[in-house]
Amino acid sequence: MSAPEILERFGRRLRVGFVGGGAGSVIGRTHLLALRADGLAELVAGCLSSDPDRADASARALLLPPERSYPDWRTMIERERDRADGIDVAVIITPPLYHAEIAEGFLAAGMSVLCEKPMTATLAEAEALTKAVESSTGLFAVTHCYTGYPMVREARHLVRSGALGEIRLVEGQFAGGEPSLLREPGDPSTRHWRFRASAMGRASLLGEIGSHVHNIVEYVTGHRVTEVSAHLSTVAARREVYDNAYLTVGFGNGAAGRLWSSFVAAGAEHGLEFRIFGDDGSLHWRQDDPEYLWLLRPGRGMTRVSRGMATTSGFSQAATRIRPGHPEGYLMAFANIYRDCAHAVMRTRLGEDASRELAALPDVRDGLSTMRLLEAAVAAHESGRTVPVGG
Amino acid sequence: MSAPEILERFGRRLRVGFVGGGAGSVIGRTHLLALRADGLAELVAGCLSSDPDRADASARALLLPPERSYPDWRTMIERERDRADGIDVAVIITPPLYHAEIAEGFLAAGMSVLCEKPMTATLAEAEALTKAVESSTGLFAVTHCYTGYPMVREARHLVRSGALGEIRLVEGQFAGGEPSLLREPGDPSTRHWRFRASAMGRASLLGEIGSHVHNIVEYVTGHRVTEVSAHLSTVAARREVYDNAYLTVGFGNGAAGRLWSSFVAAGAEHGLEFRIFGDDGSLHWRQDDPEYLWLLRPGRGMTRVSRGMATTSGFSQAATRIRPGHPEGYLMAFANIYRDCAHAVMRTRLGEDASRELAALPDVRDGLSTMRLLEAAVAAHESGRTVPVGG
Amino acid sequence: MSAPEILERFGRRLRVGFVGGGAGSVIGRTHLLALRADGLAELVAGCLSSDPDRADASARALLLPPERSYPDWRTMIERERDRADGIDVAVIITPPLYHAEIAEGFLAAGMSVLCEKPMTATLAEAEALTKAVESSTGLFAVTHCYTGYPMVREARHLVRSGALGEIRLVEGQFAGGEPSLLREPGDPSTRHWRFRASAMGRASLLGEIGSHVHNIVEYVTGHRVTEVSAHLSTVAARREVYDNAYLTVGFGNGAAGRLWSSFVAAGAEHGLEFRIFGDDGSLHWRQDDPEYLWLLRPGRGMTRVSRGMATTSGFSQAATRIRPGHPEGYLMAFANIYRDCAHAVMRTRLGEDASRELAALPDVRDGLSTMRLLEAAVAAHESGRTVPVGG
Amino acid sequence: MSAPEILERFGRRLRVGFVGGGAGSVIGRTHLLALRADGLAELVAGCLSSDPDRADASARALLLPPERSYPDWRTMIERERDRADGIDVAVIITPPLYHAEIAEGFLAAGMSVLCEKPMTATLAEAEALTKAVESSTGLFAVTHCYTGYPMVREARHLVRSGALGEIRLVEGQFAGGEPSLLREPGDPSTRHWRFRASAMGRASLLGEIGSHVHNIVEYVTGHRVTEVSAHLSTVAARREVYDNAYLTVGFGNGAAGRLWSSFVAAGAEHGLEFRIFGDDGSLHWRQDDPEYLWLLRPGRGMTRVSRGMATTSGFSQAATRIRPGHPEGYLMAFANIYRDCAHAVMRTRLGEDASRELAALPDVRDGLSTMRLLEAAVAAHESGRTVPVGG
Repeated sequence: MSAPEILERFGRRLRVGFVGGGAGSVIGRTHLLALRADGLAELVAGCLSSDPDRADASARALLLPPERSYPDWRTMIERERDRADGIDVAVIITPPLYHAEIAEGFLAAGMSVLCEKPMTATLAEAEALTKAVESSTGLFAVTHCYTGYPMVREARHLVRSGALGEIRLVEGQFAGGEPSLLREPGDPSTRHWRFRASAMGRASLLGEIGSHVHNIVEYVTGHRVTEVSAHLSTVAARREVYDNAYLTVGFGNGAAGRLWSSFVAAGAEHGLEFRIFGDDGSLHWRQDDPEYLWLLRPGRGMTRVSRGMATTSGFSQAATRIRPGHPEGYLMAFANIYRDCAHAVMRTRLGEDASRELAALPDVRDGLSTMRLLEAAVAAHESGRTVPVGG
Repeated sequence: MSAPEILERFGRRLRVGFVGGGAGSVIGRTHLLALRADGLAELVAGCLSSDPDRADASARALLLPPERSYPDWRTMIERERDRADGIDVAVIITPPLYHAEIAEGFLAAGMSVLCEKPMTATLAEAEALTKAVESSTGLFAVTHCYTGYPMVREARHLVRSGALGEIRLVEGQFAGGEPSLLREPGDPSTRHWRFRASAMGRASLLGEIGSHVHNIVEYVTGHRVTEVSAHLSTVAARREVYDNAYLTVGFGNGAAGRLWSSFVAAGAEHGLEFRIFGDDGSLHWRQDDPEYLWLLRPGRGMTRVSRGMATTSGFSQAATRIRPGHPEGYLMAFANIYRDCAHAVMRTRLGEDASRELAALPDVRDGLSTMRLLEAAVAAHESGRTVPVGG
Repeated sequence: MSAPEILERFGRRLRVGFVGGGAGSVIGRTHLLALRADGLAELVAGCLSSDPDRADASARALLLPPERSYPDWRTMIERERDRADGIDVAVIITPPLYHAEIAEGFLAAGMSVLCEKPMTATLAEAEALTKAVESSTGLFAVTHCYTGYPMVREARHLVRSGALGEIRLVEGQFAGGEPSLLREPGDPSTRHWRFRASAMGRASLLGEIGSHVHNIVEYVTGHRVTEVSAHLSTVAARREVYDNAYLTVGFGNGAAGRLWSSFVAAGAEHGLEFRIFGDDGSLHWRQDDPEYLWLLRPGRGMTRVSRGMATTSGFSQAATRIRPGHPEGYLMAFANIYRDCAHAVMRTRLGEDASRELAALPDVRDGLSTMRLLEAAVAAHESGRTVPVGG
Repeated sequence: MSAPEILERFGRRLRVGFVGGGAGSVIGRTHLLALRADGLAELVAGCLSSDPDRADASARALLLPPERSYPDWRTMIERERDRADGIDVAVIITPPLYHAEIAEGFLAAGMSVLCEKPMTATLAEAEALTKAVESSTGLFAVTHCYTGYPMVREARHLVRSGALGEIRLVEGQFAGGEPSLLREPGDPSTRHWRFRASAMGRASLLGEIGSHVHNIVEYVTGHRVTEVSAHLSTVAARREVYDNAYLTVGFGNGAAGRLWSSFVAAGAEHGLEFRIFGDDGSLHWRQDDPEYLWLLRPGRGMTRVSRGMATTSGFSQAATRIRPGHPEGYLMAFANIYRDCAHAVMRTRLGEDASRELAALPDVRDGLSTMRLLEAAVAAHESGRTVPVGG
């Protein structure tokens, strides 16, 4: 059954509910666009804010039926579970402090869950959630949206198929410094959770963006980070959390690497990129120029890999929608997470094989791996030593 | 009334019908994505192919109600006009030979029309359609999708606000040569309309892509092309139309320029770009790196203009959805045409001012201007002389 | 005999004299650097300015012996011819009005000549000079310095060895607009010859930079321009010559192309580049990023060709001095003209084969070809017609 | 006295002798080109190889007088000191093991010294040499050639004049992986000193290229590295030294940073670059695109800084030779070291102020600083701890 046939066979769009992501939420708007793009799913319910008035206003702006705008996620689970047309998938867009509890609730009700990163606020929660996922029937994925880029997937294909030989060095960074990140807001009460030590400790930077850079290098290489040393620091005045993190890491296959996360790389608008070096060449990818992958092979020049090549893998072609030469951008990368998730849920219910989609999605084990790194990085920083990443 | 409030005030999504664009149509899939992205409109009816079986299969794949999948566009007009929930907007995605007739039909029924480029197959049709639009109550826009890019709009803002001084030189090109364009297909019966002389003569290249490059330089500069000399040629073996067009042009303000359209610029995946030079500097934009605009000012270096600048105009900011640093790509540019169109229709019905949206949309006068250029270019090529662009 | 051995075998440096190029001459300083770089030649005499005081001051600043600083080039020929240690090579760095006469004088005295571009001021002079060269024993080369770039030579190697298949389209441009070119100087008496109609007519732009762009595309492709249509115009206020030239051209093999020369491409610091398209791919080179050549092949991505490739030809490797990764720049490109010239003169005197060096140098036939184009372009502009390029 | 006048006032070229750098030495050829470029100096003597036959063959190929080709550097010092036309400057191009001893010898003879990097093989030698320089009358500079690039100097000017605000993060790397570095040669006896543990221990990588990256960030920022942690490793099979070094460092002003040196960044042809972040923006420079400096300021876009700007500092303009738009490349950067050195020696002898030239040249204190870092980095690696950089 080819991808375009799945919706017709399934006979309806997937029903989705959001927890969080209401009016004013940048990431909420992004999820909405990603959800809509392919016409495979529709938003039918939500608990769009912890503030009930804001939740209701958000629901009205989206033309949601009032009775499916819930004041809290527990009520949402109960009511949606009881409806014949209840949601298939819950999307968790709250701050990380609540992810574990909410995700376990929806999974226990038999629903699938798409969860924002970092997967949880603590390693202990991640371990518990992993068990919950493994004993549930629903699908669980983490929206590490950058893995949705076709060229990130092509990088994974190339690395894993041996195009670079054995992997030796891995450079990952998410080092930005746009104005809103670079300085603390005048009014501390308007701080995003990422700048509150109460959200996930002083190392929230590692959860907010360090999780992406860790995830993407593991996603592409297939190797787990197994040890870490760390230098964490705070640059911005009046900031209560770290805003720069230098990690030097080792990987399971013996490769070495560096992961850099920063909010104070002044002037960089985004800053996610990776470079992966093997015995026979290297690959470079930058999120601000995401349509291309740069392949360097000693003595053979540098090749710009794009979707428009006869050799492009099926794995990355499946993550595209339009012809080469038309940049697809971040929102379609994000939409690929939704599309893979929707197809995986539909295929599974139709009794079809969903292994391609599941292979492409960051799962609970990936989220757990990141939470292990975070804990180890803090320990490494505090001890001034290299620390193994538990597992 | 701010943009996010319009949908809630309007109380429902706009109802849209497609003529053409069914299964297998690349541009049809693109329209679907653009239509869905913002949740402002929904596809509720269609005459998705001139082949009725294909039309129905396409409708089923999209979960359209069977009774709203029409075998011909005339029936579609009749039935939709009679429904209480009939379509608000018709989108014309057929080859250009049929655009004029279909557009006039829907306009006459009081509906709005979004029409693919080139607007018509001939100048005479364009003139007639212009009159039809001007005497109708509906909105009419041409999907010159590249005008939806925020940085194209920023270029327009900068040029028109005098950042470059008087405009002197204008370079536009749409010169690609991906494998499917570079050579004629083995089986001539599988040719796209662009490669059939029967579709709009031997100069169909100018309609298919020359229309974009002409439109974008007029869109950005605000100056019409007023004279043209032309060198048209055919490179690919067994091709019955021109596949390379060099136009040297003059603009209403005295500027000179060149417009190059090609299917045989071997290796270029897309190839749309412009450079605009004034007395005080120049701007460069390329569709394959669309998030950035390059501003060069003599003695002041080159500045990469992006969405993340404090000086970015409201006109281009209104065409964005996510934070700077996250590439939005071609599909969101296309979606901007839909969003502006939806907001303009809704605002108009609500009695609100829609002038911002209307200013941003390529209209029937722009389409007419392009058809005038096409006719003049062919005359220029045939005479070996510079020819005025009628008006 | 390998290149490093030639100097030792020859036993001394070549003796060089300059006509023009004294203090204050930008191009004179450039020649000096190029001459010195490889230690193959030394400046021993000169008539460095038409102003004798300036000539002598220039000579003193260079530590030239006073008796070899000449007040006029005729005296220089006479005296140098009579010295046992007289110059081997004269370098002509005057405005073009004097090139033909001076070159013929040195050639007649048995010396070799390196001549700045444009080769002459008129086509008639170019024809006469061609005959003079062909009946002389000296070497004659035109300092089309950009042909000295290794990657321009690699482009020539690739094109001529068929890497792109048959050549179909050729885009060349030298379109700059730095502050000193963009506007007329306040004091017209300080104008460079390029801005004086008296120097070589109103189309001096074509001589000054149009000659480079014409030469480089013929150098790379091996095809002569055989027809031209032209649009010449003047943008800058108070300017008495054209400052923008759009040429549409045909080549001997049937390829079409465009050559653009401009001083009013505001903001571009230099602006020389070419793109060459064949049936199987294209090559792009820009002088502001000269270390790389971009090779695009449909369906095979874009490859950055550099010196560091196992496949780089001997023809371009011979034009390098240091390891890949260390940019060599414009001055070393210029020095390649000197090096090839010095090696060719030495090899010839030693009775060795100098064909590799001679093949790499723009010669009198190339200069003649450019003067033919210039004459035809002016005729084309004035007639509004396509004009054959005489030959 | 302006730069062009110095030579005329001095009345002759500086006389230079090389120790090392004979035939087959890549760096020797580079020094020769740099020495010749400006006509300020001439090579008149040498001890061009430790192998006397090779030394003599090298001298002959350069047309050196046979009596000034010396079999050992001690003889060279003696004889040149006794000649009326003896050398002014000795250039030391040997492996680092010999630098200190040779440099001290020439300095003691009253000559000036240009010394290749790393300045010495050990910290103890560096300390002794520093004392020798400080008690000598000659000039001493280290050929950290990359500091000769105009845009590196412009970066220094911008950083030191506060364009970025307080410096917070410093990223430097010299991570290449061209074929000759990536693997060990088949025959270990052909190894360059950089791959021999006997040359300067297992951390020779830090001397060979780590010295450049350390020097350049100190040169630009004006801040010394004061602490370091290190992860050194060996990737290539059969290699006896480290070929990858990750250093995490702190600077005197509190900034943090990372310095990466590698021979196994497979596919990178060169790999030197830096990014410097302050409170108000950042600067990025890459040696493979050295004509430009990228200045990013939050909310103000990215500006490509080049020589062609009205704001370019005199400090960097003094390091240029030709007009903006003509890339000057690595060899002219290297030549700037020679030019500054020649001008400084001449000015000093003429009793003029040489402070501008001296400020631009990496001196013995800079070389000492690098040797301190190297020793600390090895200690940090071995202890697994952060180590202060002595001083």
